[in-house]
Amino acid sequence: MTGPLEPLSPTDRTTVKREQDHAVTDRAALHALLREGLVAHLGVVKDDHPVVLPVAYAVDLDGPDDHGTLYVHGSVAADWLRRSVDATVCVTVTELDGLVLARSGFNSSMNYRSAVVIGTVRLVDDVDERDHALDLIVDHVVPGRAAALRRPTRKELAATAVLAVPLREASLKVSEGGPDDEPEDVEAGTWGGHVPLRRVADAPVSDPATPGEVPEHVLQRARDLGWDGGYDGA
Amino acid sequence: MTGPLEPLSPTDRTTVKREQDHAVTDRAALHALLREGLVAHLGVVKDDHPVVLPVAYAVDLDGPDDHGTLYVHGSVAADWLRRSVDATVCVTVTELDGLVLARSGFNSSMNYRSAVVIGTVRLVDDVDERDHALDLIVDHVVPGRAAALRRPTRKELAATAVLAVPLREASLKVSEGGPDDEPEDVEAGTWGGHVPLRRVADAPVSDPATPGEVPEHVLQRARDLGWDGGYDGA
Repeated sequence: MTGPLEPLSPTDRTTVKREQDHAVTDRAALHALLREGLVAHLGVVKDDHPVVLPVAYAVDLDGPDDHGTLYVHGSVAADWLRRSVDATVCVTVTELDGLVLARSGFNSSMNYRSAVVIGTVRLVDDVDERDHALDLIVDHVVPGRAAALRRPTRKELAATAVLAVPLREASLKVSEGGPDDEPEDVEAGTWGGHVPLRRVADAPVSDPATPGEVPEHVLQRARDLGWDGGYDGA
Repeated sequence: MTGPLEPLSPTDRTTVKREQDHAVTDRAALHALLREGLVAHLGVVKDDHPVVLPVAYAVDLDGPDDHGTLYVHGSVAADWLRRSVDATVCVTVTELDGLVLARSGFNSSMNYRSAVVIGTVRLVDDVDERDHALDLIVDHVVPGRAAALRRPTRKELAATAVLAVPLREASLKVSEGGPDDEPEDVEAGTWGGHVPLRRVADAPVSDPATPGEVPEHVLQRARDLGWDGGYDGA
């Protein structure tokens, strides 16, 4: 992607309509959330109803699509994947940051960041783009891991489909901080506040078959995800 | 709900088709995940495409629907909510438990528990059921909180819609442990393993307007969510 960040929500279907004060029109914030998230929820229409499934993903801001590309992958035999090709899907990435405990149920809520991307799925058939996208998905989970692994085999590639969703139509909603209560509820003296939540990693666990030393890129990723660097009993 | 737990996936559309070894046909495990989750991703069809949004929810196993009821709520003015009434939606709750770092990109994955519920939405118009559902949603976030708050006002209730989704059609997929690699990749000696992930709470933060003592039900919830009970500087 070149040029300045363009505001989000360029179309009606990705305009945040409710609680517009929580809408963020800043592509940098969208990109930061998509970098931080680990699981996306992909929605696809099956017959007359939606199906929502958790998927791994990666983003390539220099990808071939307008405003960058979001990639997901799956088995060529997966029903959701076959239904997604050339269809319009919704990919939502949510990070939960806390519980907002207002003085009323009505004003109680959660702190979160949520990106909603709507776009028409392109089946990636260019070999180089597909290889790159698969590496990006591996490296999204643990940066540096793709370089530590062998290349995919011909058989693995034949069994795997990569889907591309343009990042053009996207919205971001962010809620943070404490409760926003009615003045009379604050005056009544009821306690209000919030409970921050975050995701943390525990110590990497080596597979017993090849215990060896945990590679530095794995240790680094665990530390970046909040692991304090200690092993049980070590 | 009365009687023994019935197996999950009674219909074609909630049968786990891929990686069937990960499908769990145990309603108790489904209920445990739905109790633990805090955010659901609700998918609804809008025109020709799905929209997937994060929502708070609660479950009532003694609810009026077959196999229990999942409740969500929202503003009566929300577009997704109006589209959901009498439509078939998909409600997915995913807890991410770890990164599975196989010796190949192909076998790399994540540890997670994911429940997929598909059902036709019933707008809750019974006053008692609606009151109870709203309490359940408040108590799902922090058990005991509903009793600590004033009752909703007539105006708040008029602005809020509660939707019920029967828990009848549901599937659960669970992935846990280390990687499942090709024998030749294990023999090659590449490191493989997994990084456990979990959600933790930090110390509850009181709103400055009513600092007071943090109520015991809030402290307890934070501890249950992994808070170690310590305050910064305390």
